[in-house]
Parts: sequence; C-alpha cells; structure tokens
Amino acid sequence: MSQSEVDTYCMATAIQEAVQGADEGGVPIGAALFLNTHLGSPDQTKLLGAGRNQRIQKGSPTLHGETAALEAAGRLPANVYRKCTMVRTKISPPCSMCSGAILLYGIPRVVIGENKNFVGEEELLRARGVEVVVLGDKKCEELMSTFINEHPEEWNEDIGETGEKL
Amino acid sequence: MSQSEVDTYCMATAIQEAVQGADEGGVPIGAALFLNTHLGSPDQTKLLGAGRNQRIQKGSPTLHGETAALEAAGRLPANVYRKCTMVRTKISPPCSMCSGAILLYGIPRVVIGENKNFVGEEELLRARGVEVVVLGDKKCEELMSTFINEHPEEWNEDIGETGEKL
Repeated sequence: MSQSEVDTYCMATAIQEAVQGADEGGVPIGAALFLNTHLGSPDQTKLLGAGRNQRIQKGSPTLHGETAALEAAGRLPANVYRKCTMVRTKISPPCSMCSGAILLYGIPRVVIGENKNFVGEEELLRARGVEVVVLGDKKCEELMSTFINEHPEEWNEDIGETGEKL
Repeated sequence: MSQSEVDTYCMATAIQEAVQGADEGGVPIGAALFLNTHLGSPDQTKLLGAGRNQRIQKGSPTLHGETAALEAAGRLPANVYRKCTMVRTKISPPCSMCSGAILLYGIPRVVIGENKNFVGEEELLRARGVEVVVLGDKKCEELMSTFINEHPEEWNEDIGETGEKL
C-alpha cells in the first residue's frame, strides 16, 4: 500500500470527526493522531486519539482539531509522539496554536486534507523539520467551504480575525 | 502606578493558580488573561480568565497555563484579545503551543514570572511583534525549581522531552 493510501485511510477518521462536528453545528474540522503511519500499512498504524473543533459545542477557544486529538490521546511519552503523524481535515497548514502543539511534542509529520481556505504556519513547520503532506481531499474542502460561507463570523473568531480590515 | 507595578498586581493572580497547582500535585504553572493592563492602573484592568497547567490533575497534554487561562476566558471577539496581556508564572518564553495560541489570537503582550528554567519561543514572539516582559519573580522561580527537582520526568513530559539525549 502506498504512503498516500495509508494517509487517506487515516484521513477517514479525521473526516468522520469533521462530519460529526458539522452535524453538531460546529466548526467542521477533525483531526487524528496515528502511530507508525510511516510504516506503510494500515495494519501497522494505530489510532491514538481523534477529535474535532469544539469552539461552538463547548465554547472552547483552544480545542481545535489537533488539540482535541491530542487531548483524546491523553498523556503520552515524548518518544511516542516522535513516531506519530497528525492527520487533519484542514487547515493547511495548521494555525499557530496547533502548529505549536505539533512542534512542542516533536510530531514529525502532518497530513492535511485541503489547503484552500486558510494560510497557517506551513513555513514554520517546514523550517523546524516537520513533513507537511497535502492530500487535497474534496470532502474536506466541501465541509469547510460550506461552513465558511454560512458562518463567516464564527470562522473569523476561530482563526483570531475580526473580519474587518485592521 | 508604574507598568511594572500593574504587571506585578496581575501576576499575583497567576501565582495563586500556580500555588493551587502545586497543592494539587500538578505542574506549578499558572497564567491569567487581563484586559487593558497597558492603561497603567489595576482599576482599569479586568481579569478575563485564569488557569493552571492540568497535565497531572486532568491528564491533559494541551492545558498548559496559558491555554487553561484562554479556556477559562471562553470565546472572545478578536478585538478583545488585541487589548489583552497574558501573564504567566513561567515559562519564559512560552512553549511553542502557548506561543502559538498567543499569536493565533493576536495577544500583543506577555508578562513572564521567571526565565531560568526553560527556553521557549521568545524569538518567535518578538519577531511577530509581541512584547515580552520578564518580571523575575522569586516565588515563580521557587515553585518551578522545586517541581523540576522533585519531578524531572513529569517536567520533561510537559515540554515534550524524553529526558534522554537524542
């Protein structure tokens, strides 16, 4: 199985979270932390935790997709994170908080569902040695585009923007 | 009242959180988000949220001092964050996740209790225009030094380190 097929297999878990978020009326971004995706087989990968943006559901400004996935995975030793991939339906690249969490724990690889709707911290991640892979998944694009069109104010809040020109 | 006196006044709230964390057996780092500290008077500042590291108490890898303070403050419009100061008992500078959260929400000012025990993302914050102020508070230093000496493995986990030379 190719690396891209393994990544797509893992992405399905993140998409499931994003769809659940959309069903709940939340920001439809999901993420999942997988161990050993680099070994090239779904049989060898292990889901450690999955989560979705909780801004609307829990009134949380810090539970984005990745941070929710990290919370779901719980406390892990540093050497586990270093064999992990963070898979997220968006944002490509992750926002500065989620990028910072990835850097803090030394997660070496990030797989992203789409990269059209937000410019995040790709350069910072790459500069610190994190591999960033974009899958270009249509479902991820569709979920985000619909949400941004329907709830621009909540999307701006999620990315720390006023929605006005500063 | 001088800016430093206002900052020290605000720091007392963060220290209270850190002390409570220590009493709970947790990583003794507290933080607080204050509105309008730059106006130079405690009467004009407003506490929006305070919190403490919850790694041990809640098994949380993402609730550090700042993220816990942001959670306590709840959802806020972007233009509120832009008039805020994040006060933290440590780490100077904040770790990459907390620095990322500060950058995400455009918080323009960070006040730090001590800067001896961890090298974080000071350069990144300054490069992005965040003012970083170090108070050099003895109580903050003492809380952290005691914890790191007594629980080196939990401290390493909190900063994403294995504790081994890589």
